[in-house]
Amino acid sequence: MDMGKPRVRASLSRVKEYQPGKSVEFVKKKYGLEKVVKLASNENLYGPSPKAVEAFKNFEDLHLYPPSQPEELIERISEYVGVEEKRIILAAGIDGILEATFDIFLEKGDTVSISPPTFPYYFTLATIHDAKIERLARNENFQIKPTKTNSKLTLICSPNNPTGNLERCEVVREIVREMAESDGVVFIDEAYVEFASQSLLDFADYENVIIARTFSKAFGLANLRIGYAIVPEWLRKEYLKVISPFPLSTPAIKAAIAALDDIEYMRSTVERIKKDRERIFRILSNLGVKVFPSEANFLFMRTKPDFCEELMKRGVIVRDCLAFEGCKEGDVRVSIGREEDNDFFLEKAIELIG
Amino acid sequence: MDMGKPRVRASLSRVKEYQPGKSVEFVKKKYGLEKVVKLASNENLYGPSPKAVEAFKNFEDLHLYPPSQPEELIERISEYVGVEEKRIILAAGIDGILEATFDIFLEKGDTVSISPPTFPYYFTLATIHDAKIERLARNENFQIKPTKTNSKLTLICSPNNPTGNLERCEVVREIVREMAESDGVVFIDEAYVEFASQSLLDFADYENVIIARTFSKAFGLANLRIGYAIVPEWLRKEYLKVISPFPLSTPAIKAAIAALDDIEYMRSTVERIKKDRERIFRILSNLGVKVFPSEANFLFMRTKPDFCEELMKRGVIVRDCLAFEGCKEGDVRVSIGREEDNDFFLEKAIELIG
Repeated sequence: MDMGKPRVRASLSRVKEYQPGKSVEFVKKKYGLEKVVKLASNENLYGPSPKAVEAFKNFEDLHLYPPSQPEELIERISEYVGVEEKRIILAAGIDGILEATFDIFLEKGDTVSISPPTFPYYFTLATIHDAKIERLARNENFQIKPTKTNSKLTLICSPNNPTGNLERCEVVREIVREMAESDGVVFIDEAYVEFASQSLLDFADYENVIIARTFSKAFGLANLRIGYAIVPEWLRKEYLKVISPFPLSTPAIKAAIAALDDIEYMRSTVERIKKDRERIFRILSNLGVKVFPSEANFLFMRTKPDFCEELMKRGVIVRDCLAFEGCKEGDVRVSIGREEDNDFFLEKAIELIG
Repeated sequence: MDMGKPRVRASLSRVKEYQPGKSVEFVKKKYGLEKVVKLASNENLYGPSPKAVEAFKNFEDLHLYPPSQPEELIERISEYVGVEEKRIILAAGIDGILEATFDIFLEKGDTVSISPPTFPYYFTLATIHDAKIERLARNENFQIKPTKTNSKLTLICSPNNPTGNLERCEVVREIVREMAESDGVVFIDEAYVEFASQSLLDFADYENVIIARTFSKAFGLANLRIGYAIVPEWLRKEYLKVISPFPLSTPAIKAAIAALDDIEYMRSTVERIKKDRERIFRILSNLGVKVFPSEANFLFMRTKPDFCEELMKRGVIVRDCLAFEGCKEGDVRVSIGREEDNDFFLEKAIELIG
């Protein structure tokens, strides 16, 4: 210990600093490019409903604190998901819901079950909370294998990031039931559910299941970090104890309400993205690229080790998955953007592959 | 334990749910009032610089993730506080800085020193983190008394919320030095520093001191939750590990930069608020009200038990401090608003007192 420097918790030495991806500006400058397209963060590049942008701008009282858990937004979400208001909580993104979940359930030394490759923040939070990590195996389609687990918390991402597959209902049911018997909680992260053919929402009826959703992906409001969860009724008050008192700004709340009011806009962008996801999947498959079927707004591919960097030199930023535990060199996640973005990606990818 | 309901952490039973104050709309409806003024949340009712509002609205790409720790804002804050950029971190309000500080330093069972009455969230976080709480005594002016402490973390709020007083440099120095010898950290919350005659910023040079600031109070941007901290250089990387990857939206970042660019606006509203703080202090003192000198944008008073409710019936919402540990019935905190808000408060208060 250095003189005067207080000791930090031992577990922090095992936490990796968040590494932001390269920005469009950075890549333009580094490689002297005029056009750069970023397909690395699973954003909806069609943007949100123009009505959401308008509602966002239509609030001037920035000096007043926002409401804590705004009733009107909770009402609209309740209608959207078909779950009672008293079972819905809001937080700053799914990250906020996750942080609260760890605060509520995890004691030092408890076990958390995670199935790599998946969303890296699960590992970060488990490490910060001094949890033991149990790794659940996946099959060749990246689906979690039937498994026995008696951890305190199992984290399931469906569609899974970065691989794009759905988890199987029967496997999830088995996990939920086993965990109910051993005092365990199942957290189902449905960040990408609007792009999928199936939801795991039915599991919300179990007393030990939390389902998290977001306005960051399909609704195109990533900048505002609006997350929500469907929780058992008895659990809502525990979330209210640990979630920051003001998780969302008023303009963000207004944008989310407007986005739900104009749900057809979201649905039409999702349809375009899904159509293009299938188009790109087909083209890449036909070219012999090892690309996997996806139920999200991205595709997962196993490519050559220098694929990402070579693509970046040509003006396309994709996500190098090497930092995802369970991935290997050349594993790449490419977000599905607008048709013109995807065409640009395809053009450059074909240059590289061909 | 109910069947199927997983056990939550034992400490949660000791955490109180956040109780939001009454809203203007609620009070209007309940008492059939046309005019209601809220002076309960220490907001700057002059609002932010119009340039900040303009900058806030001048961003449309709500579908793109914000930068994580935006360099331009950190640069401007560095100029404003006169501390190097590599010692500044951003978070979602001082709440976000506090949460990160607990995550970095606090192991279960560690002791946290808090001096009631003060900001209630300190107690909430200490309880969530299973800390032991040591209470530091205050003198008749609400200043922390010279004390011996060897806790892991001491939380100091100066000017103090809800009492408005500054802490004494020599007492803080003694605490900082003692804690440096026993591996302890001192967190100095300067949320209200712009309204004060003195800052504790010089203590930032100690390796075990964190100074937290915000754009929520003097800068009038409470809705956007923009907090920052000045930390020892070696500590910044630890904060980056535990602070959420995207604590601030891009419009919030732009608003903060514009607010710093138009710092004269903030200073002129602060001058008006300080002048009115002294005016109200004098008038209430002359009326025999037990009101305390303040270095913040609020005044602390010891009144009759029904003062808050009677004031509310007349259209003025102030903060009943009964929920602050260390306060008693009739303790009230009233925010200093615009002259017209303060006049309205005075009129109704005099009705009640007289």
